[in-house]
Amino acid sequence: VNIHDLPTPALVADADALEHNLATMAAALPGPRLRPHVKAHKCTSLARLQLERGHTNFTCATPREVIGMARAGLGEDLLLANQSLDADRLAAMAALDGARVTVAVDSDATVVAAAGAGIREVLVDVNVGMPRCGCDPDDAGRIADLARQRGMEVRGVMGYEGHVVGVESHEARVAMTEDCMQRLLVAHDKVGGDVVSAGGTGTYAINTWANEIQAGSYVLGDTKYVALEGLPFVEGLSVWATVIHANDDWAVADAGLKALAMDHDNPPLDGHEVWFYSDEHVTFGSPGGRPAVGDRVRVRPAHIDPTIAKHDVMHVVRGEEVIDTWEVDLRGW
Amino acid sequence: VNIHDLPTPALVADADALEHNLATMAAALPGPRLRPHVKAHKCTSLARLQLERGHTNFTCATPREVIGMARAGLGEDLLLANQSLDADRLAAMAALDGARVTVAVDSDATVVAAAGAGIREVLVDVNVGMPRCGCDPDDAGRIADLARQRGMEVRGVMGYEGHVVGVESHEARVAMTEDCMQRLLVAHDKVGGDVVSAGGTGTYAINTWANEIQAGSYVLGDTKYVALEGLPFVEGLSVWATVIHANDDWAVADAGLKALAMDHDNPPLDGHEVWFYSDEHVTFGSPGGRPAVGDRVRVRPAHIDPTIAKHDVMHVVRGEEVIDTWEVDLRGW
Repeated sequence: VNIHDLPTPALVADADALEHNLATMAAALPGPRLRPHVKAHKCTSLARLQLERGHTNFTCATPREVIGMARAGLGEDLLLANQSLDADRLAAMAALDGARVTVAVDSDATVVAAAGAGIREVLVDVNVGMPRCGCDPDDAGRIADLARQRGMEVRGVMGYEGHVVGVESHEARVAMTEDCMQRLLVAHDKVGGDVVSAGGTGTYAINTWANEIQAGSYVLGDTKYVALEGLPFVEGLSVWATVIHANDDWAVADAGLKALAMDHDNPPLDGHEVWFYSDEHVTFGSPGGRPAVGDRVRVRPAHIDPTIAKHDVMHVVRGEEVIDTWEVDLRGW
Repeated sequence: VNIHDLPTPALVADADALEHNLATMAAALPGPRLRPHVKAHKCTSLARLQLERGHTNFTCATPREVIGMARAGLGEDLLLANQSLDADRLAAMAALDGARVTVAVDSDATVVAAAGAGIREVLVDVNVGMPRCGCDPDDAGRIADLARQRGMEVRGVMGYEGHVVGVESHEARVAMTEDCMQRLLVAHDKVGGDVVSAGGTGTYAINTWANEIQAGSYVLGDTKYVALEGLPFVEGLSVWATVIHANDDWAVADAGLKALAMDHDNPPLDGHEVWFYSDEHVTFGSPGGRPAVGDRVRVRPAHIDPTIAKHDVMHVVRGEEVIDTWEVDLRGW
C-alpha cells in the first residue's frame, strides 16, 4: 500500500525517523537507564521496538496502559508514574500474571489505596518544582515509612521536572534540572531504595542525577521538541489528509479537531498556511499555488501524545510504502 | 451505581438536561424540520432518543457515522453533510442495506467520486460565507446538472452558516443568517429539489429560510452555546474526575488533555480555578477550601463534540444515579 492510498485522516509514523530516534536514545541511555514512557505512543507494537533496543522497563500514565503492556508480554518492570485512588484498577494491576507493577504514591490516601488493593511495590513521587503531583521532599520519608508499614516495598523515588523539559535554552534547562534533582535527592536520602526516576525528552541528556529517565515523546519528536536547542530527535509523526475542497482563496482538507491535538496551538501544514481547524476540517491558504481536490497534504502534529490518542491505528511508512499498521491499543483509562 | 463510584475520568450526561433539550428542540422544530447532527454525540443510543422525539432524518460528518447509524437501524434518511473522495467509503455507504444515504457534493471531483462509487442521491453544498466547503452559489446549478448527468438524484442544497452560530448577539445572528440564506436560496433556484438544509444550534430558531436544520450540540449544550443570548438549551455534559493530589496551594484531578477538548480554551471546573491541563491531569486552585484526595470534581466541557469523541462510553445519570451507559459507537472515520 502506498501512503497516498491510506484512508484519511491517517496517522503515519516514519520508520526511518523512528529508528533514528530509537537508536539515538538507546545509545545515550542504554538498557534500564531509559524507562520509556508509553503514554506518548500508546502502542504495544512500538513498545516492543523499544524493548528490542534494550529497554525492558516502562513508564505508564494510566492503569489501562499498565494492563495492556502486561497482557502484551511487556510486563518485566512497569511503573505507573501516576497516582490512583481507583480500588478496582489498582487491584487489576496487582493481579496481573507475570508482570512486575510499581505504583507512584505521594500521600497517605494513595498509600492506603495501593496497599488495600494488593499493590506490592511503590515509588514515592516527589514534587520537584512543577505544580502537579508529588509530595514535599520533606514529607517523602514519612510516606515511605507508611508504605512499608502497610507491607509494600519502597523501590525509591520519582519526580518529574515537567516545567523544565520544554525550556528552549539548553543552559537554562541544565540549571533548572539540577535544582529539581537536588530536591529529589534530598527525598531519596530519606526514602531509600535503588530507583531515582525522573526526566523527559527535553532533559534526557541533562538529567545525570536520576538513574533512569522517563522519556516518551523522543520516539516521534513533535514540533515542540525538535525545536529545542541541542535535542537530536527528528519529527516522525504526520497526519495525512485529503483536500476535499479548493477555490481561488482557500482549500479544505479532512483532518480536524477530532484527529489532532490543539493544546499546543494549531498544528502546521507542510507547504500551506493554516487558517483554522474545525471538527473534521482544516481550512488553509496556499500561497505557493492552489491545490487540487484529491491532493494529499501533511499535517505536523504539535503535540504527539494527545494526537495519537485520537486514532485507532498508526501506519508505519518507509518512504511512500506502508510497511506496517499498528493498533493504538493502550487508549483510555 | 452512584455517579461518584464511576471510574474516572468519566463522561457523564445528565438525563434531565438531555430531556429538556430534546423536548425544547422537538417542540421548536418538529419531525423532519430538524435533521439532528450526530457528530455532536457519536452515540446511536442518543440518536435513538432523537428518533423517538420524531426526528427520522439525521446529519453525519463522516462515513463511519453514516455506516454506524445505518447498521443500528437508524438509516431512514442519512445525510453525509461533508465531501468525500474516498472510493471505498463512498461505496460502503452506497451498499448499505435498507438505508437512504445522501452525500454532499461541491465540485466536479466530488460529483465524479460519488457517482463512481454508486451513491444515488446528493445535495449540492453551497458556501454561504464561512471559508470551508461549499461551491459558489453561482456554480451550484452547473454542479447539480453534472450530478444528474452522472445518474444521481439531486435532492436540493445545503449550506452551513458556521461563522454565525457562535455570534453572541441575537440581532447580529439574525442579520447574518438572512444574508447567508439569501446565498443559499439563489443556489436553490438553480439546483431545484425539495431540500434546503442549513443551520446549527446557534441559529436553529432564526433560520426560517432553510426547511431543515442540522443542529447537533443542542442535545448537551456546551459552555459556548449556553452563553449565547436567547438559546434555551442547558448544559448536560460533564467529565467527572477524582482528586489524586492536594496540598495547601493547589490540587490535581485525573482528567486531562486526553479526556477533554482544548480548542475552546481550558474547560472550567465547578467551584475551583483551573491552572493548567496536561495529558492526564488538571492542576487547579481552590479558593473555597482545600479538597481532599479522593474527592470528585466536575469539569464542564467547553466543546462537547471533540470531548465526547475522546471517550469509549457516556454514562447517563439522573441526580446521582447512573441509569444507563452508552457506547460512543460512531467514533473515527
